[in-house]
Amino acid sequence: MKVGVLKETTPGERRVALVPEMVPRLREAGLEVLVQSGAGDGAWFADSAYAQAGAAIVSRDELLSEAGIVVAISRPDEPVIGALRAGQALVGLLNPLVGPGFAAALAARGVTAISLDGLPRTLPRAQGMDALTSQANVAGYKAALVGAAAFARFFPLLITAAGTARPAKVLVLGTGVAGLQAIGTAKRLGAVVSAYDVRPQTKSEVESLGASFIELTSVGPAAGEGGYARALTEEERQAQQAELTGHIARHDVIITTAQVPGRRPPLLVTEDAIRRCWSPRTRSRRWRPVR
Amino acid sequence: MKVGVLKETTPGERRVALVPEMVPRLREAGLEVLVQSGAGDGAWFADSAYAQAGAAIVSRDELLSEAGIVVAISRPDEPVIGALRAGQALVGLLNPLVGPGFAAALAARGVTAISLDGLPRTLPRAQGMDALTSQANVAGYKAALVGAAAFARFFPLLITAAGTARPAKVLVLGTGVAGLQAIGTAKRLGAVVSAYDVRPQTKSEVESLGASFIELTSVGPAAGEGGYARALTEEERQAQQAELTGHIARHDVIITTAQVPGRRPPLLVTEDAIRRCWSPRTRSRRWRPVR
Repeated sequence: MKVGVLKETTPGERRVALVPEMVPRLREAGLEVLVQSGAGDGAWFADSAYAQAGAAIVSRDELLSEAGIVVAISRPDEPVIGALRAGQALVGLLNPLVGPGFAAALAARGVTAISLDGLPRTLPRAQGMDALTSQANVAGYKAALVGAAAFARFFPLLITAAGTARPAKVLVLGTGVAGLQAIGTAKRLGAVVSAYDVRPQTKSEVESLGASFIELTSVGPAAGEGGYARALTEEERQAQQAELTGHIARHDVIITTAQVPGRRPPLLVTEDAIRRCWSPRTRSRRWRPVR
Repeated sequence: MKVGVLKETTPGERRVALVPEMVPRLREAGLEVLVQSGAGDGAWFADSAYAQAGAAIVSRDELLSEAGIVVAISRPDEPVIGALRAGQALVGLLNPLVGPGFAAALAARGVTAISLDGLPRTLPRAQGMDALTSQANVAGYKAALVGAAAFARFFPLLITAAGTARPAKVLVLGTGVAGLQAIGTAKRLGAVVSAYDVRPQTKSEVESLGASFIELTSVGPAAGEGGYARALTEEERQAQQAELTGHIARHDVIITTAQVPGRRPPLLVTEDAIRRCWSPRTRSRRWRPVR
């Protein structure tokens, strides 16, 4: 059996599904590894690193005709989907519930699709296959760093001869893996952190990291299956947004990580919230665009 | 007496010598404040903010003809220097010992120049005028953030279901105000930090921040006047560089803050050091360009 590693085509995607140091482990398990030329470039893995590890560097067309298992991060583009066939398996973070035409197209071709974002993360046995948690960790960590780098002041309290800098007030929306990592990183940097989630049971996790949990009076609890949040009704959503807007205006940095499985993430920071932060009364200088 | 705030001309310089909230304090002291149009743009202070605070927005030519005291961050460019005259004062971080033709030109025109980087920082009375320490604090803090954002792994130790990420090894060269702030910020983020300075008395400061102090066997102590480092002899410099190169190759992120007053900062990370980090034995992927 041959495993083929696709070069990602999503704009801005720098990751690769398999790193060179994993090639020998697949080979020991009796698999051959094919890597599309340039697949690792964005992640600083040259073709030569894969070749040295024992993989064959091939074109996309060779890969699609020879591989029994095709691995990717995000959904492949149309030409790849069109070239897959019955008997082949596609493994990745495929997000099948958003735009379900994609899953239908694979099913019509008889392709076996395994979407790692569908793994139940609360199941201990599945943790070795859990690709989502590590990515959420990276995203939360990086969000706090990007926020700190873009913020016009310091995150920590600084007492200097030239005066005292107040710590930044950071608000994290959504306290799953990404949110908790963002809270921890912003706290490490010395910020004063608040967090909000529709799942009230996350309060103790937030507080264990030294952040304060914001409880909205206008929305009831909304925990869904498998530890995730459920989608809110339209009425709940509007009440939530109105109350959140007041909190957003009182913070310096907002990090949004809220997600509901299989749906577009909720829009929590509205134009109106941004406008209220821009008002002369609340120090207009605080808001800057982040690339 | 009128105080004029110049718009900076150094490429990449976004700072401004006076912020709007200080305008009323100068006016209370009986000074008029002139601000060159656009002076605060890079720092997100609009002309209107200065005008509201009581300053007059003027052209550069008006400013230079009317102001008795001209304030700036970096050295003004040639046209400004050529327009200054006897009886005027120029205040800024002028760095007069680097390229002394600048100070000679001001002296020839009879301009009184006050360079705030020349203040003795160890003198308690001077701390209220100490512009250098706050800027060094910002630089050290930001250097650690830029390093963390550019680094391909995490700074902290992370133990996850997917495996353990080792903490980053950060080396800070020079442990003045900027270096100590870089150490503190990298430590806050969870990195393992080492530091080096030619002044052995900084060892206890480094260790009090939880970092380890690297002692080179090839160079003796080189503390200079006023708590700064002295310049090394050519022989000392070469021995230092050779020994440092070995340490550099063992670290993931290098932050350089070493400076000697009135001189070009020493070149501590050589092409050879970078080349040794690039060798296949020491994981070539670690080095990436930072913009």
